Amino acid sequence: MGVSDHGLRATPDPPGLATAESPFERFSLAPGFRAAAAGCGLKSGGALDLALVVAETPCTAAGVFTTNRIQAAPVLLDRERLERGAARISAVIANSGCANACTGPGGLDDARAMASLAASGLGCEAGQVLVLSTGVIGRRLDMAKLERGIALVTSERAEQGAAAAARAIMTTDTRPKIAQADATIGDRAITIRGFAKGAGMIHPDMATMLAVLTTDAGIAPGPLQAALAAAVRRSFNRISVDGDMSTNDTVLLLASGRAGEITDRAGLEAFTAALTGCGVALARQIARDGEGATRLVEVTVSGAASETEAHRVADSIARSALVKSAIHGGDPNWGRILAAAGTSGVALEPARLHLALGAPGSAVDVVEGGLPLAYDERAASATLRGDPVLVRLDLGQGDAAATVWTCDLSAEYVAINAHYTT
Amino acid sequence: MGVSDHGLRATPDPPGLATAESPFERFSLAPGFRAAAAGCGLKSGGALDLALVVAETPCTAAGVFTTNRIQAAPVLLDRERLERGAARISAVIANSGCANACTGPGGLDDARAMASLAASGLGCEAGQVLVLSTGVIGRRLDMAKLERGIALVTSERAEQGAAAAARAIMTTDTRPKIAQADATIGDRAITIRGFAKGAGMIHPDMATMLAVLTTDAGIAPGPLQAALAAAVRRSFNRISVDGDMSTNDTVLLLASGRAGEITDRAGLEAFTAALTGCGVALARQIARDGEGATRLVEVTVSGAASETEAHRVADSIARSALVKSAIHGGDPNWGRILAAAGTSGVALEPARLHLALGAPGSAVDVVEGGLPLAYDERAASATLRGDPVLVRLDLGQGDAAATVWTCDLSAEYVAINAHYTT
Repeated sequence: MGVSDHGLRATPDPPGLATAESPFERFSLAPGFRAAAAGCGLKSGGALDLALVVAETPCTAAGVFTTNRIQAAPVLLDRERLERGAARISAVIANSGCANACTGPGGLDDARAMASLAASGLGCEAGQVLVLSTGVIGRRLDMAKLERGIALVTSERAEQGAAAAARAIMTTDTRPKIAQADATIGDRAITIRGFAKGAGMIHPDMATMLAVLTTDAGIAPGPLQAALAAAVRRSFNRISVDGDMSTNDTVLLLASGRAGEITDRAGLEAFTAALTGCGVALARQIARDGEGATRLVEVTVSGAASETEAHRVADSIARSALVKSAIHGGDPNWGRILAAAGTSGVALEPARLHLALGAPGSAVDVVEGGLPLAYDERAASATLRGDPVLVRLDLGQGDAAATVWTCDLSAEYVAINAHYTT
Repeated sequence: MGVSDHGLRATPDPPGLATAESPFERFSLAPGFRAAAAGCGLKSGGALDLALVVAETPCTAAGVFTTNRIQAAPVLLDRERLERGAARISAVIANSGCANACTGPGGLDDARAMASLAASGLGCEAGQVLVLSTGVIGRRLDMAKLERGIALVTSERAEQGAAAAARAIMTTDTRPKIAQADATIGDRAITIRGFAKGAGMIHPDMATMLAVLTTDAGIAPGPLQAALAAAVRRSFNRISVDGDMSTNDTVLLLASGRAGEITDRAGLEAFTAALTGCGVALARQIARDGEGATRLVEVTVSGAASETEAHRVADSIARSALVKSAIHGGDPNWGRILAAAGTSGVALEPARLHLALGAPGSAVDVVEGGLPLAYDERAASATLRGDPVLVRLDLGQGDAAATVWTCDLSAEYVAINAHYTT
């Protein structure tokens, strides 16, 4: 298996994994899929704001959606469509510039109309089209612009390619996010390729995280959904920029089957591992591109009684505004990390805690047995100025571990978010 | 019942309550208690850093402590002392400048030594003295300085009065926090007076929120603890600055009995109401003085199925960095408020939501039935520049309500927290 995130320095791959490089602009989706993009005026200045992913033949699909109780219209629509027809999905139409969230029944009609327009242009049924929207909450879509835009993006005049599609769904992202993972499963070589957007779990007035993953593996709807849920749990659900969750968060996975069917348990496990790798690569790019962020922060909690507990402690550290501010300033403020860990609800034994701070190639042990070590403050501070910053807390209770990715918290975050609509 | 917070404009008191004003410097504790303060060098420049509260005769005490799994030495000590001897407490000795947290068994010895030194100076038993510490985490107390300081603060050379004690426990607070509540219970007039510190649930490298409340009511240990727990639940547990919880958070209540015993249920309920009012007045001052904050934000969720659900939704809004950044910028960004409400885990029905934003004397309805109203953006923005800012969300599901206090999030918060020790 090889994972590449095309630009972000990845966590060291597990032994035996090769990392392939491929230039961003030549990036394509998995065999059986094509992508296109257009600008229809939802963003100003003619910027790309409409993306289309088309399966050459109807494919199997799976989706994981926000658990926010306030759900955007496209989320409601896609959930319904996947329940009814996950085995025959033909396309995904996605817009930026407007989230179509908090728009009531009229907004749901708009989402249906987006799918119908795309279906008309592609010659499939409306029920075979999934919809994604991202952008400002509480405003209705400009359907006249979208009608013209969808006619364009379903035509040959659209800008072709996954790189264009990845740019078209950006909002406050500073760069597009793409990733691929390759694996050999049995005697079949399969690939998973996708793109995502999100510069935080919530943006200024934005409804945010979207990802579209494609694979040439052939997997039935039930196992495909299970694989996606498992992969999301260890990738997109392991990032935090500001601890918020949007009304639109969606991860879609489309499987063309071009590389052959995978039905056996070992094969599905290998596929899930590759899918997780691809998800992690995208998720790390999202955390790294957090609003105002200057570096990626990787928090790993080990020695936990269970993965759930490890995740809970890591999440508590990754959400702490204090910890993230300290990292921004290069302050090896281990007291804040322990205090944040202590609020997770997991029963910690202070005398068993071990904490190290690191950057790629260096690490400084700062706490042993719950007490501070006589570490070199300047060396510790230096590790916090690296990228990524590694925070490693061992609970001394068991064998389970979990990693969460976040970013530092800068004054720029507040500046971005304080003055958005006024 | 009358509640005063001596400087902060309070929420409108319930009808029939008079608000008494008393100048800060003349502020005293409840009859039966005296306070003193001294500087012993834990803070630089001779600033007050040691506070003493003395009961003229042994009194009843109750305490509510942090639920952080990492607990500071004075928290461990006080819990033990209140379990064994809550009916015979004589004093509280409190220092700032060092939290005595993450200091292991040696730190617990130091806390015991602080109590013993104070007991020697006062002529009581060590077990009758409670201890509070606040300040930097992970450093041992300078016991030589404390020994000299405790000798001073238990002598007549100490600075006398609750105002001095309130100043002595400040860390990054920009001003001391005091409050009193008066009530007539049956034929007895009782008073509750206290002081607190905290400029956030967590400070730069600090272990933070402390409060000492005193009353002349006489209440047995069990009901006193129940009254304190109920009051804290609706006051100190209803504030959020950065969503973090410290290793030292402690609220102590000492009851001298000078005004007579309260044993009947109605009397205890009236006492709890007065205690809650005093707690809310202090809690609001803490939220208002949040690091980098420019104004108090009061989030009230009504129309909930239960108070627990109302609290959960209000807390989710009050913790949102996005909502708090928007308020800082005067941005009436209702989409963020609804999105934050939706992540609380409470089942919301979007079509029943009503949201108003306000300042004292003005309010603007922005969402009705889950959809935006055609409100005046400038008027809505103006309400967010008032102090306090009022956020009122009605869920349309029931009759329960809860209020949480927080503050806006400014770039100053990050500046304070990014460069503390380096």
